[in-house]
Order: sequence, then C-alpha cells, then structure tokens
Amino acid sequence: MTQTVAIIGGGVIGGGWAARFLLMGWDVQLFDPDPEAERKMSEVLGNARRSLPGLSDVSLPPEGRLRHCATISEVADGAVWIQESVPERLDLKRKVYQTIQEHCAEDAIIGSSTSGFKPSELQDCATRPEQIVVTHPFNPVYLLPLVELVGTAKNSDALIHRAKDVLTSVGMYPLHIKAEIDAHIADRLLEAVWRESLWLVKDGIATTEEIDDAIRYGFGLRWAQMGLFETYRIAGGEAGMRHFISQFGPALSWPWTKLMDVPELTEELTNQIAGQSDAQSGHLSIRELERVRDNNLVTILRGLKAQDWGAGRILNAQDARVTKIANSIDDVADLSQPILTVKRAVPLDWTDYNGHMNEARYLQAFGDATDQLMLMIGCDADYIQSGGSYFTAETHIRHLDEVHAGAEIEVRTQCLLGEGKKLHLFHQMMSGDTLLATGEHMLIHVSLETRKASEPAVQVSGPLAKLAKAHAALPRPEGAGSAVGVRAG
Amino acid sequence: MTQTVAIIGGGVIGGGWAARFLLMGWDVQLFDPDPEAERKMSEVLGNARRSLPGLSDVSLPPEGRLRHCATISEVADGAVWIQESVPERLDLKRKVYQTIQEHCAEDAIIGSSTSGFKPSELQDCATRPEQIVVTHPFNPVYLLPLVELVGTAKNSDALIHRAKDVLTSVGMYPLHIKAEIDAHIADRLLEAVWRESLWLVKDGIATTEEIDDAIRYGFGLRWAQMGLFETYRIAGGEAGMRHFISQFGPALSWPWTKLMDVPELTEELTNQIAGQSDAQSGHLSIRELERVRDNNLVTILRGLKAQDWGAGRILNAQDARVTKIANSIDDVADLSQPILTVKRAVPLDWTDYNGHMNEARYLQAFGDATDQLMLMIGCDADYIQSGGSYFTAETHIRHLDEVHAGAEIEVRTQCLLGEGKKLHLFHQMMSGDTLLATGEHMLIHVSLETRKASEPAVQVSGPLAKLAKAHAALPRPEGAGSAVGVRAG
Repeated sequence: MTQTVAIIGGGVIGGGWAARFLLMGWDVQLFDPDPEAERKMSEVLGNARRSLPGLSDVSLPPEGRLRHCATISEVADGAVWIQESVPERLDLKRKVYQTIQEHCAEDAIIGSSTSGFKPSELQDCATRPEQIVVTHPFNPVYLLPLVELVGTAKNSDALIHRAKDVLTSVGMYPLHIKAEIDAHIADRLLEAVWRESLWLVKDGIATTEEIDDAIRYGFGLRWAQMGLFETYRIAGGEAGMRHFISQFGPALSWPWTKLMDVPELTEELTNQIAGQSDAQSGHLSIRELERVRDNNLVTILRGLKAQDWGAGRILNAQDARVTKIANSIDDVADLSQPILTVKRAVPLDWTDYNGHMNEARYLQAFGDATDQLMLMIGCDADYIQSGGSYFTAETHIRHLDEVHAGAEIEVRTQCLLGEGKKLHLFHQMMSGDTLLATGEHMLIHVSLETRKASEPAVQVSGPLAKLAKAHAALPRPEGAGSAVGVRAG
Repeated sequence: MTQTVAIIGGGVIGGGWAARFLLMGWDVQLFDPDPEAERKMSEVLGNARRSLPGLSDVSLPPEGRLRHCATISEVADGAVWIQESVPERLDLKRKVYQTIQEHCAEDAIIGSSTSGFKPSELQDCATRPEQIVVTHPFNPVYLLPLVELVGTAKNSDALIHRAKDVLTSVGMYPLHIKAEIDAHIADRLLEAVWRESLWLVKDGIATTEEIDDAIRYGFGLRWAQMGLFETYRIAGGEAGMRHFISQFGPALSWPWTKLMDVPELTEELTNQIAGQSDAQSGHLSIRELERVRDNNLVTILRGLKAQDWGAGRILNAQDARVTKIANSIDDVADLSQPILTVKRAVPLDWTDYNGHMNEARYLQAFGDATDQLMLMIGCDADYIQSGGSYFTAETHIRHLDEVHAGAEIEVRTQCLLGEGKKLHLFHQMMSGDTLLATGEHMLIHVSLETRKASEPAVQVSGPLAKLAKAHAALPRPEGAGSAVGVRAG
C-alpha cells in the first residue's frame, strides 16, 4: 500500500524531502504558508525528476501523489512520517510539534531537519517526546544519501530502528549518532572549514574562488569517496594510521589555523583512532586501498570531464594541448589510407569487474572515432550550431580480441561511402598489431530543426567528397557488409 | 626535445611527482638515499601507469626515462625543474638547497613539496633565493591536479609564470597563492577538519568510520565539484551568497565547534565574500548552478556505483531492494514472449551535449539486457567464478528514434538461438510505444581459463534450452539478420 509522508516547510530542504519521497513512490502532503510554495516545490521536483530516477539502474516505483495542504491538521492526517523543515527557531519548532501532535498518529515518526538543535531541545515541551528525532539531511536532499539520525533516551530502540528502515527504503544512508551534540557531526566539520575560510578571505590570503579551487581540485576529490581518516590511512603508507598520526600529529600544535583549541594527542587518543581505523578499513591493505582510491578518482575525474566541469575541465584543456590527431583531412599526411581517428589508453572506468574493456566502450571508442572524422570533414561545433549534423542509423561491431585497462588503442577509419545524405564508415581498432574489433556504421545527415534526413552543406560535402574519392581505391575491408552470425557474401 | 626533471626524495609524494613527469614524457632523475627507494618508486609508478594514461582521452607522449641517481650533484645535472620532497625539517631542506644550488642550472626552478614551511623560510640562507618556490601537491600526485604555488618578492614574475607553464604542461592546476601563510590554503582547511574530528573521536561522539561516512555520503560529494562557497551560494537559493551569510552567519557565534577564534562578520567582510562569489559564479544563475551540480553529482554517484564503493554502494543496495525484474526464467510469467530484461530511466550521464542518449549507451543498455538474460539462465556470478561465461562476438544496432534523460526505457529480449556454444539474442528497446532501437547479438560460451569457445555446463544449457524452446515459435523480428545498409533477404 502506498504510504503517506507529511512535509512541513517546502523550501530547499523540505522540497527536497518531498521530491525524494514522491519519486520513491510515497504520497506526499505538503504544508508551507509561503504563497510561492507551489512554484518552489514544482521547481525542486523538476530538478529531482531529471536526476534521481536515472541515478538508479532499475525502475523506481510509480511516482506518488503530491497534495498541498492548507493546515497542519490536514497535512498530518494519515502520515506515517512527518518531516519538519521550518526555520531554525526553537520556539517556532516547539509550537509546530504541539500542533502536529494534536493531529498525527501516535506511532508516526516526527523527524526534524534541524542542523542547529539537539533532539532533547526539540522534545522538551512536547506532548509525546518519544515521537521526535533529528533527521538532518544534506542539500540536494533528493540526491545525497546522508541523513544524520539523532535521538535521545526517550526514543525507543524500536522507533530508531523503524526510522532507519524508512530512510533506507527511500535510498538514504541514516547515520545514527549515538550521543547528541550541537550541530551533529557533518555541520561541525563544515563549520570548522567555514570559519577558517572566513579568516583566509578576511586576511586577503585567498578569494572564495581560490578556496573552492583548493578544495575541488584536491582533497574534495578524495573526500567524495573516502572521507578524512581513510584518506590519511593511505597517506600513512604501509605503516597505516598510527604512523600518520606520529608523523603529522605534531602539526596540531603548530599555528596552522586560527582555530586554536586543540585536543592533546595522548597515547590513549592515538590508540583509539588507530583502532577505529583498523575496524573501518583493516580488511584492505594499503595497496588495495590505493587501487580502490585510484579507480574512484579516475571515475570521478572522467565523469567531471564528460560534464566539462571542475577538475574535469582542467583535464579537457590538457587533452586539447597534447592531442596529435589531425582536426582536418587537409592535415592528414596520407589520405589514401584509413585515417587515424582515436589514439588513447583504455581508462579504468571502461573496464568491467574482470579488467577487460566493457563491450559498450568499444562503441564509445568507435563513436569518438566517428566524431573525430566528422570534425575532420567540417562537421564541427559551429556547423552543428548552424543546424546540420550526422546521426548514426546503424552499427555493426565484431569483437575479435580482449583488451585491458591501460593498453594503448588506435582506431583507423575508412570511408566506404560519402555521398548525398549517407556516410558509411568502417573503423578498425588495434592494440599494437592485434585487431581488437571492427565497427561498421551508417550515418545519415539530418537537419537538427526537422530531425529528418537532409543534404549536408557544401562546407561538409566538399571535404567528404575529397575523402570518399581518396578512399575509393581501398579494398573493401574484411567483415564489412556482414550480418550477425552471417559472413558477407 | 625531452626535458629533464630532478626529483629529490622518492616517497609517496616524490614518487608521485616522478610518475606524473615520466608519464607526461619527461626524463626523470631521482635521488633518494632510502635503500628501498627503487622498490617504492616502481610501486608508485605501477599505480600511476594503470590510472593516469586512461584519464586522458588522447594519447600521452611516450613515457620518459627514469634514472636513479646516487648523489644530488648527479640528480641536478641538466634538470630544468628540481622538485624537493624531503622530510619536513627546515635545517635539512636548507642544506639540500645549498647542495642543489652548487650543481644545478641557474635558471632551473626549485620547487618544494613542503606543506609546513613558507617560501621565505626556504629561501633564507640560500645562495640564489630567487630560484626557490613552494609547489605543494596533493596525494596521489599523479592524479590530483591541485598544486599550491607560493613565492615571495624575491621570485621574479617571469619565474612564477614559467613555473605555472611547466606545472600546467604536466596536467596540473597551479593555484598561485599571492600571500604566504603557514600551511598555505588547503592544509589549513584540512587542519581545521582534522582538529574538529579529533575532538569528536576523543569525546566519543563518533568513530573514524562514522566521520568518514558523514563526509563521503554528504558534503564530500559536493566538494569534489564545487567546493565550499559555490555550494553555499546554491544553498542561499535565489538570493545567493549574501542571503546565505545573513541566514547562516549567526551560527558563527554558536558553540558548533571547539575551535573558537572566529572572525567578526562585519558588513565589510560580508561584502567582500558576496562580491568574490559573484565574480566566481555570477555568470550562472542559481537554477543553472543547481543543474550543473546535479549533473555532476549524478555522474560522480553513478561512477561510484560502477565501482561499488562509498555512496555508490548505497545506491546499488537500493537498486537491489527495488528491482522488479525476474532473476530466473522460472519466475517469468509468460516465457512464450520476449522477456523484460531492462526497465530504467535514462540517466543524465548517458546523454550528450544536446540531451539525447549517446549512441554508446544504447549498447550499454543492451549489454545490461544481455547480462540480465545470462543471470536468468543461470550464468550468474557463481557460474562465472567456476570458469564459464559468454563473450559477445558480434553486435548489430539499429538506431530508430531518439530518447532524452529521464525517459523510462524497457528492453525485451528474444532468444533466436540457444544451442551448443552459441547464444543469439535480439533486444528491442522501447520508450512507451516508441521503438527506439534494436540490438542483435551473437554470444559465444567460453572457458575463462583457455579463453576459447566451450560448451556451457548443464546448469546453464538446461534453462537456455527451455528458453530457446519457448521462443522457437516467435516470428523472426523485423531487422534481424540484416547488415549495415542492407535489409535482410
């Protein structure tokens, strides 16, 4: 049966909660007195719809129903979970809980998105304090898995367990914090960086952009996958966490920050950290951790390359500086032979669990080869902007041999036909002397306006005719024209 | 002409520098008195060789030559760049510089990997202080782009400019810090988090693992792409950075950290931060920034899914909980029809610049469909572990219509032949009633030991025979058996 959640407060955080629950198949009742609430909610939901379902590799349940409610009594009706995201004022929150508890089911869970208040403060003055916990999420709530779950002795174990189940069922990671503390965990770390960053800006050492770059081109990439301690465990090298503390711990007493109250690194604290680190990561050796880290970093960095953002933009600029492949057929030394269109190493994120290049990545490399050839015949970004392009209509790949991450591969491309609307290409992928695969592709020139087949403009048809003529004398490559399981006649 | 770099100190950092320069085509001369230096260097280089070249989408220059040197005079000979990564003792570093400067070219650049010393401290006592700068990298040096470049008034603008060029040419991002300060920028931020984390561990609030989870499932994913200020700019919503400071700034005076010396948030400091943030991100609206952020997050999260690590592991567990596709042909309701093998939304990272699903991702979806079918006939992880599997030999794709991010797609699979070593499949990809593409695939059963064709074992051949028999009566699908540009006869 479809479950119902009540969302109180529909801003960035409340709207994010609503979107996550909706897309995970819950019915959502939303209360927000802001006259702009419906518009804001629909914007957050639009963002969530384009990003969350595809984050999954399987189909999510049908989207739930969203209902805007005019009162707290209406919003709480029938809800098994009530998420409060009203402004950070304790008196306001307490008043909201009193009204909620007049109307909600006694076994509903009331979660607060508060970053600033402890659960004991929220429970004070409540009719049924045992119903209230902190469930502190991170923006964007519909994408980031972390939610800090904090209760007090007044919450039963059964309620905490149930809260974890609900949060897990909507794809989140409930981090159950056993002792309450101001700002929970993550915001204390954020607060420390925020304070130090304010000093750096105030003292004129760095701008906001320089601070962001120092994060996202460096340790931010490590933290997205491992966090602080596991990263330092690797930095400690073969001797691990204890070595790291002994080597770098003394810096604690150096004036490396303006934030100066510092715990003493006693033997006891060292043992505690090293022991916890063993429990966390001791099942992997430092070498294994390094490989995991590098796989993750390559994956993240290459993902950012595809988005041309952050560290990925830096890598794209570097590629542009070092590329040796001609961007025009006029720069190809010998146009009478199949021409070099891809020359690269097989990246880690193109391989599957056993280290071989995944079958889809063969087509990615052939697609890159096709893109390069299009560039060489003048079908470049400007031309595409002007409204013409080629779409792939058909592909035939023969997988002839395996290849591993790190291997250098080259694709050479023969033009079988380049006439009118048609472009018929044959790619050969080699690693050294080994033929790994062939890719045969039929592309059709289209008008991007009508999405229908059209003749290419002369700045493309000209160079293409030159290429087709130069390749006309080449023998038809082995494997061209064949169907799956059938040799060409 | 190949350039030469001298690397002094071959530990984790020095070895990382050496590996990056080598793979970017530089000859490397390495000096490290550690008797284990050659082994350590070869291990770092091994890690770098498997990850760095494929990070690029183009071919890197041929790898340079690595030479281990016995003395500083030998290592400095002919080097245009000298990178010092010896232990963090000022007296030692100063002594090393004196020896270097007796032997190196006067126009060589001497970069120090120090995190703890300011360039003025390093330049003190040097013969030619103008040659020395701080170039502080981040581990792993061969993957992370950030390097903090810090000089003093003694360094000429020309030298700083040249240093930037060299660092950029090896794929790094030189962040030029204009005013020297203890620990530069990034390590001050790290130090703040490290101190706060030590308190959390010491006070028993959280373990090292819980702190790491609080980072990597939450703000670490944001920081990998945007850093602190740009993230907060988004959190401020339509009103931007100034609103964020006015809303959250007051928390600065709350006891959210044990690190207590805090700058006063004057109007002047607020203006400074808001102005810098405008300069950094003002060319994009908050809505645009949100979309960029979400694209990046989906890309990072889906990358981590493929690695089954961190936040990606959480997402995989969620997929396993919600999947509705049968894992065995015995659970398929109607085996006489093509069977459902993929049902998912098109993720953001499967689309190209114009929002359409990229051609290679059609094959990824068909590959996923094939994997699902293999699972259904008993060719699962245990079977593969036992030494048998299917390899794709041939693929024929017809691209019939376009599809956008977020659209729900389904693949249904017909078994054309499942006999002996051969498995001949035909996939149809639909979005609603629209046929998007067909994929015809010939797979061959192989022994993973010999990598040669072999008969499947009975736990696979049995279910496959059942499936092939159930599909034998189905009509041959339109498009099967055709070659590129040629209709099937």
